[in-house]
Amino acid sequence: MTRPSVVTFPAARSAASPAPRFDAIAAAERVAQTLLPDAAARDRLGASPRKELELLSGSGLLPLLNPQEHGGGGGSFTDALLAVRVIGRADASIAQLLAYHYLHLTNALWRATPEQGAALSRASVAGNWFWGGASNPRDPESRLTAVEDGFRLTGRKTFASNAALADRITLRAELNDGFAVLVVPGDREGVTHGNDWDAFGQRLSESGTITFADVHVGKDEVLGDPAAAPPPRTSLVVPFHQLLIVNFYLGTAEGALSEANRYIRTVSRPWQASNVEKASLDPYILEHYGLLDVDLRASLALADVAAERFEAAAARANDITLDERNIAAGAIYAAKVHSSRTALEITARIFELMGARATAGHYGFDRFWRNIRTHTLHDPVVYKAREVGNYALNGTITPTPLYS
Amino acid sequence: MTRPSVVTFPAARSAASPAPRFDAIAAAERVAQTLLPDAAARDRLGASPRKELELLSGSGLLPLLNPQEHGGGGGSFTDALLAVRVIGRADASIAQLLAYHYLHLTNALWRATPEQGAALSRASVAGNWFWGGASNPRDPESRLTAVEDGFRLTGRKTFASNAALADRITLRAELNDGFAVLVVPGDREGVTHGNDWDAFGQRLSESGTITFADVHVGKDEVLGDPAAAPPPRTSLVVPFHQLLIVNFYLGTAEGALSEANRYIRTVSRPWQASNVEKASLDPYILEHYGLLDVDLRASLALADVAAERFEAAAARANDITLDERNIAAGAIYAAKVHSSRTALEITARIFELMGARATAGHYGFDRFWRNIRTHTLHDPVVYKAREVGNYALNGTITPTPLYS
Amino acid sequence: MTRPSVVTFPAARSAASPAPRFDAIAAAERVAQTLLPDAAARDRLGASPRKELELLSGSGLLPLLNPQEHGGGGGSFTDALLAVRVIGRADASIAQLLAYHYLHLTNALWRATPEQGAALSRASVAGNWFWGGASNPRDPESRLTAVEDGFRLTGRKTFASNAALADRITLRAELNDGFAVLVVPGDREGVTHGNDWDAFGQRLSESGTITFADVHVGKDEVLGDPAAAPPPRTSLVVPFHQLLIVNFYLGTAEGALSEANRYIRTVSRPWQASNVEKASLDPYILEHYGLLDVDLRASLALADVAAERFEAAAARANDITLDERNIAAGAIYAAKVHSSRTALEITARIFELMGARATAGHYGFDRFWRNIRTHTLHDPVVYKAREVGNYALNGTITPTPLYS
Amino acid sequence: MTRPSVVTFPAARSAASPAPRFDAIAAAERVAQTLLPDAAARDRLGASPRKELELLSGSGLLPLLNPQEHGGGGGSFTDALLAVRVIGRADASIAQLLAYHYLHLTNALWRATPEQGAALSRASVAGNWFWGGASNPRDPESRLTAVEDGFRLTGRKTFASNAALADRITLRAELNDGFAVLVVPGDREGVTHGNDWDAFGQRLSESGTITFADVHVGKDEVLGDPAAAPPPRTSLVVPFHQLLIVNFYLGTAEGALSEANRYIRTVSRPWQASNVEKASLDPYILEHYGLLDVDLRASLALADVAAERFEAAAARANDITLDERNIAAGAIYAAKVHSSRTALEITARIFELMGARATAGHYGFDRFWRNIRTHTLHDPVVYKAREVGNYALNGTITPTPLYS
Repeated sequence: MTRPSVVTFPAARSAASPAPRFDAIAAAERVAQTLLPDAAARDRLGASPRKELELLSGSGLLPLLNPQEHGGGGGSFTDALLAVRVIGRADASIAQLLAYHYLHLTNALWRATPEQGAALSRASVAGNWFWGGASNPRDPESRLTAVEDGFRLTGRKTFASNAALADRITLRAELNDGFAVLVVPGDREGVTHGNDWDAFGQRLSESGTITFADVHVGKDEVLGDPAAAPPPRTSLVVPFHQLLIVNFYLGTAEGALSEANRYIRTVSRPWQASNVEKASLDPYILEHYGLLDVDLRASLALADVAAERFEAAAARANDITLDERNIAAGAIYAAKVHSSRTALEITARIFELMGARATAGHYGFDRFWRNIRTHTLHDPVVYKAREVGNYALNGTITPTPLYS
Repeated sequence: MTRPSVVTFPAARSAASPAPRFDAIAAAERVAQTLLPDAAARDRLGASPRKELELLSGSGLLPLLNPQEHGGGGGSFTDALLAVRVIGRADASIAQLLAYHYLHLTNALWRATPEQGAALSRASVAGNWFWGGASNPRDPESRLTAVEDGFRLTGRKTFASNAALADRITLRAELNDGFAVLVVPGDREGVTHGNDWDAFGQRLSESGTITFADVHVGKDEVLGDPAAAPPPRTSLVVPFHQLLIVNFYLGTAEGALSEANRYIRTVSRPWQASNVEKASLDPYILEHYGLLDVDLRASLALADVAAERFEAAAARANDITLDERNIAAGAIYAAKVHSSRTALEITARIFELMGARATAGHYGFDRFWRNIRTHTLHDPVVYKAREVGNYALNGTITPTPLYS
Repeated sequence: MTRPSVVTFPAARSAASPAPRFDAIAAAERVAQTLLPDAAARDRLGASPRKELELLSGSGLLPLLNPQEHGGGGGSFTDALLAVRVIGRADASIAQLLAYHYLHLTNALWRATPEQGAALSRASVAGNWFWGGASNPRDPESRLTAVEDGFRLTGRKTFASNAALADRITLRAELNDGFAVLVVPGDREGVTHGNDWDAFGQRLSESGTITFADVHVGKDEVLGDPAAAPPPRTSLVVPFHQLLIVNFYLGTAEGALSEANRYIRTVSRPWQASNVEKASLDPYILEHYGLLDVDLRASLALADVAAERFEAAAARANDITLDERNIAAGAIYAAKVHSSRTALEITARIFELMGARATAGHYGFDRFWRNIRTHTLHDPVVYKAREVGNYALNGTITPTPLYS
Repeated sequence: MTRPSVVTFPAARSAASPAPRFDAIAAAERVAQTLLPDAAARDRLGASPRKELELLSGSGLLPLLNPQEHGGGGGSFTDALLAVRVIGRADASIAQLLAYHYLHLTNALWRATPEQGAALSRASVAGNWFWGGASNPRDPESRLTAVEDGFRLTGRKTFASNAALADRITLRAELNDGFAVLVVPGDREGVTHGNDWDAFGQRLSESGTITFADVHVGKDEVLGDPAAAPPPRTSLVVPFHQLLIVNFYLGTAEGALSEANRYIRTVSRPWQASNVEKASLDPYILEHYGLLDVDLRASLALADVAAERFEAAAARANDITLDERNIAAGAIYAAKVHSSRTALEITARIFELMGARATAGHYGFDRFWRNIRTHTLHDPVVYKAREVGNYALNGTITPTPLYS
């Protein structure tokens, strides 16, 4: 009998891309396989993930979302989400890098004029660019000032995900009475990376501080028309962000439960009062493993439903209505709430199944919880539960810039 | 803006039956619409559901699973599951009647020889038969004794679902050293119905006692060859049973949350310390409603995944392997665990969102919890969690007759 | 070996009243013993609890809190709380009657001038009065209008606990620009009892509607000086109310768990997959019973701590400061949150330990949950959690009339 | 208004030791005050706690449990438990050192003959000894072999708490067909300390490996009569062990919630969608802080009840019966289950109240969870829940050497 995977193969995928030119899942699995053996050591060291970025660059995953006519992979959003999930099984930090890459690239392309978008997309594929961002809305806003040959950018942002390693950084800045979204190279003069990311989790996620000191910004680097209303589909940026997050949470949870599965079967000893020969026959381990597996299966199923809703909404492009957007957002925020809880629960509880010796430092099994605990604070999950309730009771979702 | 339904429309359906001859969901919705207004009164009265069975009989849902070449609806199992779910939104007892009808019909058809099966199926369609069963394995086994012109059946079973109203009853009985599965008319001489169902929930589900006193059973009423191993696909009877249960639990949960939604928006008054104008704006009602909605969405998504797995397994018919069976069973048992918890939680917690006056007797809102609390004891859900764990850790599911 | 009780004997008691003249606990146990055998039948019938009130009247418990110099029992508040808890083990409705009796009597005595209080107390003992109230703040306020020989009272209140059977009713009414608290006989002309209590739980708690139609109120029936600030210790009325509630919740939880204990040991059959000979040896029943027992023990311990804090606060009489009041209120509101959750959990989960047949109507075991579910909606428990947090973080408790 | 402490002052103490010669709580608070500022740095460094042991040695807490007639503090067990709890508020590792010191000292004194006990106790006070142990029953047993001048001890034990720093080590070893309990100096020839403790939590708890290579053991170092049944009160060693654990879990939980309280009030910024001016006014922070505070209050109350039960049992000395022992053990195991859950919950959830920046490495707030997660695996808490259930249902507690 073949051993059943703890991982239910995502049904959404086959439907979404029946015959992909580029097999994103297979590529992600190769990356994951390379990352897994060193994951604990990498977490301990906490160095800048330059080598890991090279691995992503070499995998073909960076241009996955770029259209085939630009030389890209032409993958679906579902492909991207699953690639993030699969890499999350091995290393949640590196999955986060890829997730934020897709986010900031997509944000730029959706905000740009068609011409800007095509040019950016082609250049991104040609350069195999890695994208980052710098738009934390809880910091003071960055400021764009018109000068003769374009703009000057000043500001300072924390939690600038990917930015320190990024070829291009998407950011938001005040311009006149409104906001502009722009793209600048990560190494442009005046851009300084704090390299000061120091959380107890997602230690390789390069989410430190960025400073813009009189950075020159060309006119064509400001995306779209800042004076106009943002294109309707940019209302999907926040849901896409949240859904990417959902998928690396679930990948992490799958990875943690998979490690526990292996450990219980091969290392754990039965408790003396259990009267069973193997830990994997202990009635309480069976029950509690089962309960974690149930929650994970439910969370994966809900994430796949949310991905379907997102694909449908994204397919509407700039024809999307608020109702259609909220159908997707509601499903995604529900998945966010559920996956946060599931991932926290699994990464904390696996130890009760493995036993005391699984806390040995060399396993590094606590990294799963530290990673999830750190990133699930990105935005308060209770406010997402509120919006799910708000949507069901009042038919609306409270717009909160960059968060809802 | 249209009000979003609390109910995510099941994605599985469109894929499973793109162009049904008979629209089972629409038929179920008509039944539900008729049942809903009187649900509380019907629960209070607790009479035998003869009128409600007429409604089912008239709906076209009874022959849904029979092949079109037998005159039946030719629906998929998914259609049947969704029909049960939809009716469960209005009345969990009546949904249970339909669920057990599908179960006992399917059990008979799968156990029969091809010829028996075709004849039974045609007769069932022709007579618009309603099916029941009498196989509770925790009671002493019924006994079949060979006599000249067939068999004599003796025994007594509790929890004989549907049997008191059934045209045909499927049951299991000891024969020689093994078991036979047989079908008898519900009104055959010697069959007595206790009409003694008296639980505090599922009050119209007619699950009382049945007694067989020297009941004549014809040779052709014994299904298949009792001396041979049961056909492989009968290993899916218990998973099908469990998945039918999942769907009327989830329908009940949808119905309860839907009632709460309406009540909060139209009846509840804001709590004085909330400083909001409407109960539906109370931050805690939004949060906790959201959390229940998240759980329901996850449970529905998981049930739909389980239905896909079940369809795939059932499509294998008698070529099914143990591994294939367990893939479906594992998904279904996970859905059983999850939906039990979700339905218990929703039916108990809605009151906290609606407030004290929602306990008024005339609303009968406690029936949701009583119904779920009663039926979720059918088999101990913790043993299903154990099997989910067992499957993930040991690659196996413990065979327990009629339960796993 | 003696069977350990599920009930930890409350340690608080012996300290609080080392040598009581009147043994309130013993009296309550006698009442409980009489009530228990008929509890299910009484719930089904749902009649007005006249016979049960006679039982309370004959028990000596009504004048428990009246001072010995007035002829009363001279019991401590802890005695009263424990008496309520003990009776709650047998019948939560009757425990509620006694709880609200103590509440409304105490409210009147604390609000009264010393002379009024002594007279009321002596009269109450002499007449063995049963007290009720009519002050639901969510209804429009009742109104007191000065007339020549006193006042005229008009108004209508729902949830008028005990009032329909009460000798004296304590209530709040608008007078001029403020509020007066007054006491009227339950049968005074113009007082009409709706006898319309119809919730699905606490069915004998007589919490129906009361109407005051030009009811004459004597000057001496208005307590204290309505124009003056209420005496400081009346700030303890709401905490006392909440603590009485805590104790009949916990009594109900004790009663439910005790029934389950007996049932598991004497009726439940082991599940076939458990491989044990008795249900009480099933590893999952042991685990989950244990978890319920742990929660109940913790809730009882917390309630006893809250009672100590309340006794200390009440002992300060009108010298009590806001800080001292909030120390007691914080402990009591914590106990309210905890006991609500514990009682809901125990009364819902015991069925999973007992098995399917425990849902038989004649046991009436669902009454435990219906009782708790109904009364825990008295005021939203989440707002009590908020106040516990508010107290810990901001050192304050939000004053909400009659609720916090 | 004074800020209310998150910590309910333990009521048990005043009753237990009305006029202590040595104020253990005050001494523990001084130790805690010294430890708190460096707790995060100390955890990061993870060095052997030599300096911290000096602090304990200088505090007067080591001889707390020794009788005054031996020169000791004459404190109650409750004093010792509270001292452990108070130190746990600042540093869970150091609290563990003190807890295991009390455990291994007490185990030795209870096992010894009266003469041995008195001599050991006097010597311990005179030398201000620090005690450790080496009895993990899941490792192969150590072995004692009779030689001319006493015994030779061989063996190897993991999780040898305190042993590397201990003046005296209490351990269990096979002797003939039974077990002996003995005491050896930590630096005796042949005793080797692995100094290999490397868990991700309780990093300063010195629970590494110990090896006994032909260690000489004097006849007087074997406690009591190994051939005789152990003195009855040694049946309280495991409950005492568990109750010490309970108290450093609760101290840790108090410490974590106290840090969160301070952080929320002084550092956290309100979430933009909250529409409040301070994080401490956010309705969800109030609610969820409140819920954690409720659980902590309940857990503390239950631990105090358990301490009362333990004092009562310990006071019975060698007259204790199995029933009396189990009354204490039942209360303690309930407290173990509850405090484990509470401490895990609080140490994991405080981040949701503090927000994303609280994950910064320099705060080290994850140490609370890592500490609790590590030690709560000491023995599977689900087996303690089972025993609580077993006690309630079957009146017994399954004897498991060194665990139940």
